Amino acid sequence: MPVTVSATLAANEEIAERRRAGAPVLPMAFGEAGLPVLPELREALAAGGDRNAYGPVAGGPDLRAAAAGYWERRGLPTDPGQVVSGPGSKPLLFALLLALGGDVVVPRPSWVSYAAQARMLGGRPIGVPTPPGQGGVPEPELLTRAVVEARRAGRTVRSVIVTLPDNPTGTLASRGAVRRLCGAARDLDLVVISDEIYRDLVYEGQPPFVSPTAFAPERTVVTTALSKNLALGGWRLGVARLPDSELGEALRAELLGIGSEIWSSASGPVQQAAAYAFAEPPEVVARVAASRRLHARVAAAVTDRFVGSGAIVVPPQAAFYLYPDLEAWRARLGADHGIDTGAGLSRHLLRAYGLGVLPAVEFGEGERALRLRVATSLLYGETAEQREEALAADDPVALPWIAGSLDRLSEVLADVAG
Amino acid sequence: MPVTVSATLAANEEIAERRRAGAPVLPMAFGEAGLPVLPELREALAAGGDRNAYGPVAGGPDLRAAAAGYWERRGLPTDPGQVVSGPGSKPLLFALLLALGGDVVVPRPSWVSYAAQARMLGGRPIGVPTPPGQGGVPEPELLTRAVVEARRAGRTVRSVIVTLPDNPTGTLASRGAVRRLCGAARDLDLVVISDEIYRDLVYEGQPPFVSPTAFAPERTVVTTALSKNLALGGWRLGVARLPDSELGEALRAELLGIGSEIWSSASGPVQQAAAYAFAEPPEVVARVAASRRLHARVAAAVTDRFVGSGAIVVPPQAAFYLYPDLEAWRARLGADHGIDTGAGLSRHLLRAYGLGVLPAVEFGEGERALRLRVATSLLYGETAEQREEALAADDPVALPWIAGSLDRLSEVLADVAG
Repeated sequence: MPVTVSATLAANEEIAERRRAGAPVLPMAFGEAGLPVLPELREALAAGGDRNAYGPVAGGPDLRAAAAGYWERRGLPTDPGQVVSGPGSKPLLFALLLALGGDVVVPRPSWVSYAAQARMLGGRPIGVPTPPGQGGVPEPELLTRAVVEARRAGRTVRSVIVTLPDNPTGTLASRGAVRRLCGAARDLDLVVISDEIYRDLVYEGQPPFVSPTAFAPERTVVTTALSKNLALGGWRLGVARLPDSELGEALRAELLGIGSEIWSSASGPVQQAAAYAFAEPPEVVARVAASRRLHARVAAAVTDRFVGSGAIVVPPQAAFYLYPDLEAWRARLGADHGIDTGAGLSRHLLRAYGLGVLPAVEFGEGERALRLRVATSLLYGETAEQREEALAADDPVALPWIAGSLDRLSEVLADVAG
Repeated sequence: MPVTVSATLAANEEIAERRRAGAPVLPMAFGEAGLPVLPELREALAAGGDRNAYGPVAGGPDLRAAAAGYWERRGLPTDPGQVVSGPGSKPLLFALLLALGGDVVVPRPSWVSYAAQARMLGGRPIGVPTPPGQGGVPEPELLTRAVVEARRAGRTVRSVIVTLPDNPTGTLASRGAVRRLCGAARDLDLVVISDEIYRDLVYEGQPPFVSPTAFAPERTVVTTALSKNLALGGWRLGVARLPDSELGEALRAELLGIGSEIWSSASGPVQQAAAYAFAEPPEVVARVAASRRLHARVAAAVTDRFVGSGAIVVPPQAAFYLYPDLEAWRARLGADHGIDTGAGLSRHLLRAYGLGVLPAVEFGEGERALRLRVATSLLYGETAEQREEALAADDPVALPWIAGSLDRLSEVLADVAG
């Protein structure tokens, strides 16, 4: 049962060590929102300090009602009984995979932990490519072919994960892509696990967000968390919305059984803060909006720098990631450094320049793919003050520390591209 | 993969519903410390509100150093690198079982979740009886016989769990029992998982606490948490101490890999409070001491009431549990109510009297065993004020709400015993 520390967390720790050693870094490996806590949420956490009793596994009634309201305001009627919380959406996804059993289809590329969790549970995740610009949603025909083939080989396939919007590509699959995915899932009788943790970070001016619940409500489980939209990754709080169906009820019972034996519940004080956040008072809404603007501006600027160095980049539409393709560098990388894999490239970028990124292989793609997951949100500053300033700025990319990082990035890319 | 909600949590929810309905209850099913949060710990939590970044999977350096100091002060030299934290000791135990693989030996009786976790992982836990008064430590000869037999049948057995002091019996195994268990574990090459969550709640005047680390340091993993000694179950924070050995290093790497894919880390603000608690400033030490006294007084009083009704009870030496044997009631229970199982008895006590307890079968014993796990710590009061008063009282059992519960308990027991 060999499991190595999640690639993103490992890269994060390596970057931190370089920084402590005084070496220059461009920390773009780690998917952390990189912003301080909204003061009202700190207050809500402190006010919840008396929640020291073991509460219900699903989470307190206040949190479940607030999460239900969050979904209702997004056009998805939800009973608090359909909500299960946990210490992050990661454990909820793990428990879902454990409850469902069998193998899971994951998009290729997709977030490192889906496949890692499936393997920990003894499964063999089935990676299905996503069409360009439709990150997070497996191509339906390829999905069908892969599932039919796996079943013909005697395997059980129970579910498909989609990521809307997507990590690692920062793109948002279209209504049509989601609808076709749901059709295929229904035909194949697959449960759809829709990871919507970046939902509130779709940039202004993009087409509307469409969830699989619009087309396959009876079989779609939605997960989200406070980690990305409110930068509370370290607090550990996620929620799952089970479908209002027989399947949903059965899954909920299994989830609660699993949760009760692995984590008991999310931390009580964090639940209280989460109930506050999911109720979306005006200052929370404003904070998310400001974060969304900042993410959009900096991701666009970083995209420009990569495009300027010869990369092909589908422009990100959400979150704080881009996924440049550096195939154009292949000849040069081979000739100068003997590099012919994504991991070789990212190692070179880290060691020679202190630029931390993750290679496509970590997201389930081939070793030779020269694509990189570039996270932009740790450029906002090294102190809480700088980060608050970035959040408030009309033109954040003009702030000296962000502009400096962007220029350093251009230098690095120019040097590698030659 | 059918998993039902942990028996203790389920009983807890049922009791809460009865209370809401206005029915009388004696909530003695749930292993919750039943005390308010020490104000300094609430302050430490609030001060940690800015810990929103994803931190190291093992926990922050402050927490690991404090936990190492906690063990050092108990005669167990510990490097912070040996410490792994998580959102409770429950997930750490789950991850240990997953990392070790194979089957695990659990004491019979023992805490409900050990066996449940093992089954979730596809294993078949091997229950080995504990000698009277040596709760939590399987009898070494029976252990050896069971492991040899299981291995002969082709099964892999990798570990044994001990609980020191013990839940459900509230007893503390002797130095000799621990030493012999360690000898058998070494002979059988088993990893010893020592759950020491109640360690700081051994009553005054009891023989000294002895950990398996005294005899088998190279193969013993210790877990503890803040849930019991400081009543912070709902905050979710546990720590594991890996042995200073090759085995320990390998297990640590596996634990971090698993933790990174299931829970990422314990909640940041809770980690900060935990670092404060494990440093054991005077007010924390005083709080634990006061809790220990209160637990001792009330558990002794409840023991007296059970003994008075004909039960055989090994007097608890720690924590807030007793484990009365009501075999003396069998004829009467059968004649009056057709009850011949522990589950039947506990159901009767709950429905007829609102007395919540858990039957021995939940702890891995036989269905017919008329033993009950009785938790005493939810008698301290229904409000934070009552509970603080109980903690401060010279004679807590004389407080009207505690005396009233004890009298009600005597009535109920007398009525059932006839």
